[in-house]
Amino acid sequence: MATIHPGSRLRPHVKAHKCTSLAREQYLAGHHSFTCATPNEVLGMVRAGVGDDLLLANEVLDTARLSALAAAQNSACITVAVDSDATIDAAAAAGLQNVVVDVNVGLPRCGCAPTDAGRLADRARTRGMNVRGVMGYEGHLMMVADRDDKRRQVREAMSTLAKAAHDVGGDIISAGGTGTYDLFEGTSVNEVQAGSYALMDTQYATLGLPFEQAMWVVGTVISENDQWKVLDVGLKALGMDHGNPSISDGSVWFCSDEHLTFSGTGSSIGDRVRVIPAHIDPTMAMHAVAHVVENDAVVDTWPIDLRGW
Amino acid sequence: MATIHPGSRLRPHVKAHKCTSLAREQYLAGHHSFTCATPNEVLGMVRAGVGDDLLLANEVLDTARLSALAAAQNSACITVAVDSDATIDAAAAAGLQNVVVDVNVGLPRCGCAPTDAGRLADRARTRGMNVRGVMGYEGHLMMVADRDDKRRQVREAMSTLAKAAHDVGGDIISAGGTGTYDLFEGTSVNEVQAGSYALMDTQYATLGLPFEQAMWVVGTVISENDQWKVLDVGLKALGMDHGNPSISDGSVWFCSDEHLTFSGTGSSIGDRVRVIPAHIDPTMAMHAVAHVVENDAVVDTWPIDLRGW
Repeated sequence: MATIHPGSRLRPHVKAHKCTSLAREQYLAGHHSFTCATPNEVLGMVRAGVGDDLLLANEVLDTARLSALAAAQNSACITVAVDSDATIDAAAAAGLQNVVVDVNVGLPRCGCAPTDAGRLADRARTRGMNVRGVMGYEGHLMMVADRDDKRRQVREAMSTLAKAAHDVGGDIISAGGTGTYDLFEGTSVNEVQAGSYALMDTQYATLGLPFEQAMWVVGTVISENDQWKVLDVGLKALGMDHGNPSISDGSVWFCSDEHLTFSGTGSSIGDRVRVIPAHIDPTMAMHAVAHVVENDAVVDTWPIDLRGW
Repeated sequence: MATIHPGSRLRPHVKAHKCTSLAREQYLAGHHSFTCATPNEVLGMVRAGVGDDLLLANEVLDTARLSALAAAQNSACITVAVDSDATIDAAAAAGLQNVVVDVNVGLPRCGCAPTDAGRLADRARTRGMNVRGVMGYEGHLMMVADRDDKRRQVREAMSTLAKAAHDVGGDIISAGGTGTYDLFEGTSVNEVQAGSYALMDTQYATLGLPFEQAMWVVGTVISENDQWKVLDVGLKALGMDHGNPSISDGSVWFCSDEHLTFSGTGSSIGDRVRVIPAHIDPTMAMHAVAHVVENDAVVDTWPIDLRGW
């Protein structure tokens, strides 16, 4: 990723891994600005001293959390997304210095109407804040199967974002994710918020991206018979919103709270089996630590220290 | 539940809430024996001093975890499920004193073949362990819609368990869950392992059980327009394996990592909204604390202290 989007062209999203040790690797790969989804992620990055420029790409109204972010501005450049009068006023009241205007580019989620972006930027400036630019997340396009269709739709969405950027001012035009990272040529987008690329999952793997699966939940076969086997990795250890996980050497039947029932000939009782999650982000959020392995030997243990809100 | 299955007739399953403070309420309601799904749940209950009789209703091969359980036997009566030579030998090697034989009664998961239960009990006794009886979880029957059909299938499964119990010996015949709690009349089952009844979720609510929803994830509306609104409760805060959560005053469109998009007229930006999870067990496992409320006032905060493995 650092080859395609070097330095500040990539603003890695830490919500995908919630791990400051991994973020530090991304920093060493040249990316010094980061995207966060929760106040706790921003504050954790500040505590770890990773990242020169932290964007909270999410709307926050909670007074205590906004005040904690404001208090951390002495230690790092912090910018928050706003998309309404209410979020602007809350950020200003808490003493936050920097905002971007979050523009809706088609995903039914946060983001102001594109035509309202300029007005909101003016309001933020009137409230004394620095408006650094715009962001717009085309999350509804990540899994579009046809590549030409996807490119066309991304360009349309980014054209909307570019118009809003003109009304808003500032330097930042931020967008994108792992599913669209290579479709911004010819657009005005100047930073990409991809996160999942670093660890991957089975859903993103269906897109044929040049990124490798790098995280597994490792289980032990605890029960078996001539029809099925049972791993001690269940749905409390796996993000399930994209469906069942996969295993390389068998067929997954279903997951229970603490179990995965599967069939396959490659393992028997007591064996360790690697489970590939269908969705990396919520899977990482379920675990306290990640063990770093080289050739099956654990060489380091990283706290997943950005969990929680 | 304590009216229908008083005292030791109910062995509440703590995997549904992972909270020793809630388990203590169950203890005060007369249930002094508990079911656990992970070694960590057993050890946490021992640390909290809740429960006179703790059953790990799951197979474990991990030497370190089994040794930790064995070391805790001075502080509490601990019993583990076994369903194979390997799990018996591992329990014996770790120094565990008590086992139940886990019998497969139809769910494709753990449990020995019913006809093998007697042989396994003999093996466990030969290895010096006390065989307290059998357990068999009819998890595949929890959501059977037709009540007469369900009762018939539960009786068949429990007839299988009773035969195995005869071969095994011991006093315990343990089975059941919230979906089958009232279908054991006329069977030999003498304790029920229900857990979800205490907090409930939208899936169990479809069964029309006499238990009330008692847990919500509370979010704030952080963005809105004339078509949809966005709550700051996403799929990292909700067990998603049973599908989307519900809200009382609106229609849920979809969940993202940190957001829930919905439509409805009952709330606007800044308002708090209660989200009802579709599956309580994994939802509880995602949160560090539960706030106990009476009439919307927080009267206590309970650590969800049995998380992890």
